[in-house]
Amino acid sequence: MQGVYEYIDAHLEESLEDLMHLCRQPSVSAQGIGIEETAELVAEMLQECNIKVQILPGVGGGYPVVYGELAGDSPMTLLFYNHYDVQPPEPLEEWSSPPFEPTISNGILRCRGVADNKGNIVARLSAIRAYQAVKGHLPISIKFCIEGEEEIGSPHLAAFVEQNRLLLKADACVWEGGGVNWQGQPVITFGCKGLLYVELVAREAARDIHSSTATVVPNPAWRLIWALSSLKDKDEKILIDGFYDAVRPPTQSEVEAVRAMPSEDRELKESLGLKSFLLGLSGFEFGLRHLFDPTCNICGITSGYGGEGSKTVLPCVAGAKIDFRLVPDQRPEDVLAKLREHLDRNGFEDIEIASLSGENPARTPLDSPFGKVVCQTAREVYELDPVVVPTMAATGPMSCFTDTLGIPTVCMGVEYPDDRAHAPDENIRITDFVKGTKHVAGILDRFGQRV
Amino acid sequence: MQGVYEYIDAHLEESLEDLMHLCRQPSVSAQGIGIEETAELVAEMLQECNIKVQILPGVGGGYPVVYGELAGDSPMTLLFYNHYDVQPPEPLEEWSSPPFEPTISNGILRCRGVADNKGNIVARLSAIRAYQAVKGHLPISIKFCIEGEEEIGSPHLAAFVEQNRLLLKADACVWEGGGVNWQGQPVITFGCKGLLYVELVAREAARDIHSSTATVVPNPAWRLIWALSSLKDKDEKILIDGFYDAVRPPTQSEVEAVRAMPSEDRELKESLGLKSFLLGLSGFEFGLRHLFDPTCNICGITSGYGGEGSKTVLPCVAGAKIDFRLVPDQRPEDVLAKLREHLDRNGFEDIEIASLSGENPARTPLDSPFGKVVCQTAREVYELDPVVVPTMAATGPMSCFTDTLGIPTVCMGVEYPDDRAHAPDENIRITDFVKGTKHVAGILDRFGQRV
Repeated sequence: MQGVYEYIDAHLEESLEDLMHLCRQPSVSAQGIGIEETAELVAEMLQECNIKVQILPGVGGGYPVVYGELAGDSPMTLLFYNHYDVQPPEPLEEWSSPPFEPTISNGILRCRGVADNKGNIVARLSAIRAYQAVKGHLPISIKFCIEGEEEIGSPHLAAFVEQNRLLLKADACVWEGGGVNWQGQPVITFGCKGLLYVELVAREAARDIHSSTATVVPNPAWRLIWALSSLKDKDEKILIDGFYDAVRPPTQSEVEAVRAMPSEDRELKESLGLKSFLLGLSGFEFGLRHLFDPTCNICGITSGYGGEGSKTVLPCVAGAKIDFRLVPDQRPEDVLAKLREHLDRNGFEDIEIASLSGENPARTPLDSPFGKVVCQTAREVYELDPVVVPTMAATGPMSCFTDTLGIPTVCMGVEYPDDRAHAPDENIRITDFVKGTKHVAGILDRFGQRV
Repeated sequence: MQGVYEYIDAHLEESLEDLMHLCRQPSVSAQGIGIEETAELVAEMLQECNIKVQILPGVGGGYPVVYGELAGDSPMTLLFYNHYDVQPPEPLEEWSSPPFEPTISNGILRCRGVADNKGNIVARLSAIRAYQAVKGHLPISIKFCIEGEEEIGSPHLAAFVEQNRLLLKADACVWEGGGVNWQGQPVITFGCKGLLYVELVAREAARDIHSSTATVVPNPAWRLIWALSSLKDKDEKILIDGFYDAVRPPTQSEVEAVRAMPSEDRELKESLGLKSFLLGLSGFEFGLRHLFDPTCNICGITSGYGGEGSKTVLPCVAGAKIDFRLVPDQRPEDVLAKLREHLDRNGFEDIEIASLSGENPARTPLDSPFGKVVCQTAREVYELDPVVVPTMAATGPMSCFTDTLGIPTVCMGVEYPDDRAHAPDENIRITDFVKGTKHVAGILDRFGQRV
């Protein structure tokens, strides 16, 4: 592989030109800006790497998906999942330079979308090009599935994957993002949590009314509070009957992976100004709970008067937004049904539940051969032990790949902890871009060898 | 009194001219509009009735108070409490005519402030003028205390009355407002509830954070919900230790007064679109609870994301605004202390309490001689039995008079149920204005005779 790695170093300027070209093209899904143009630009970039491309219409009115494939020596296929959309650039005044004008200084490339995840798209393409240029062939077949709605929650991806199972058929998937930790170790992540997002609404009178009637007029804010307080107790135990039934305990190797992870809870506690974490957790116990426990979290509550000073009002409506982070093998529709049953059984038939979104959890076994390939090649390229993370605490549409397509799916990429993804001055370090590119080349090479 | 009543009828045009003149002068305390001008105009109107006037500076930076006195045949003194300020006229587009241009049609005078309570100021002055014109003297002495901050919660009245006890010394007080019910019966009210308005605030992390950390990062919305749910149970029992200790049960005559009140709960239930009131109450039981029970009401809750759709956030702060309506002999400062103790005892030392306002409850005995005078003269003028109401469910600064000055205080006036006080198209019926004027004249006459 030395020749390929040298090629990547020697052609860095061209790769960065490609990346800056892609970054200059705004593609803000939340604002509907530059979607078609970016899909076409990405398609052209794939074609330049000899990849056969189709721009497929999104399912159900979704933004288009760029699909690409390139047959290699073996029918064994690696699928890259990426997205060409980016977060809105606002607040503009907090950027050091215009968000869609890439700048390079001190080894850092700054632009909206460069970390999340145009840098990964270009690193993957650069690796493929380098491999072909040096070796004259590709040992495995590759596919790309690059959607345009990740930053708005991938609302049409599950249906797209469902409808295109055959087209997307592959033996493994490289996830859209990943990177190194503060110590420069590559972080390889094997899953993500699921999600159920609901809004609970209590309604009583037809209109807000003077609070002197609180003697006799029911107050939906009280109803909501009593209902919410029935969901979780002060020891953080979620009280919905059967909520934990489907929770699959972590495997021994997942537990050991958490024990081996560098603990970062002290830094987080300090940065958040907290005296302690929930239940006084730290270190290994903190890691176990953070990765393997489901949550029931209040994202927002709204009722009545929230302005300055006092207003003596009895509100007619009260609402709470709640997200449940789910772990294997919980399912959002099952938790939703159990939530309804719980409320009914506790005398809260009047509380309405609107289900706003759901996502299944996803997990790839740590001992999957593909996972081992990703970790071994990471060790070689980064010359450091990779950090194996059994799952993110956050959520993504990963189950489309692990469950619908049934393939191992692993995260790796060019990011680093201070990349400011989603924030002003989003950036990557060029050294990470180079290593991430070489890591992809290593995976291409080794994944073929394992058969 | 026939001559006085006839004089009032004969000089109605002049009284209405006075009222329209006063209404044309905006006096919006919340917006600081027209305060000085209105105080001077009111002072002039008092002087025209031979009343000696001083415009006293408000205490502690408050708006000025118009003080007036007129010695009569007896040192026995009746104090009129009124306010010259009005509610903001907004929303302007919902008025049928400009809010500060009085219009008369179909026996109705429409203008901001005409019901609340410039109509009462002018009715009281018209009665005094009529009595003097016809009888050539006043049987009792009178005083006026007309403040300019009632519509913003009378923040400086208590201190003003405290500092001017001697000046305001009187034997009884006529409250600023009152009127008739839908059947045209005069409603005579003998008290009001007190108030404690607080804001509870829970804080955790230094900033909002991604909700995937809900496994380990404390959520202030949960803390607030658990704290709130400890304050009141689903049977509407307030759980703060000692909360009910100071509650004085209603007297037998107060209970009988409620039994005699026409019950209006069915209309209210219909207008609010409610299936039932709290605890299924109606009729007499409804009335008892509504007038004699204290409340703990959530006026508003705010935390995290309240916009459209979903945002997966863990908020760093949560707040709830709560009003307690208090009954004799509860005191806001005592309830505040008990609330703090309750939270501490239940493990909520972290919940902050900001006290936004407090007001003592006030109650005048139904069998007070002054109350009897007001009821008897009402029966004579309205030719209908008055409705005796032991207390409003709402709050006002009445304890300044009942407790600080130690005098019986009773509500009567020119209002009616559809007067739209505080709302667009505020209005009074001219027939009510005439009867309210005659009722004041009757009180002036009879209050002197009772010695």
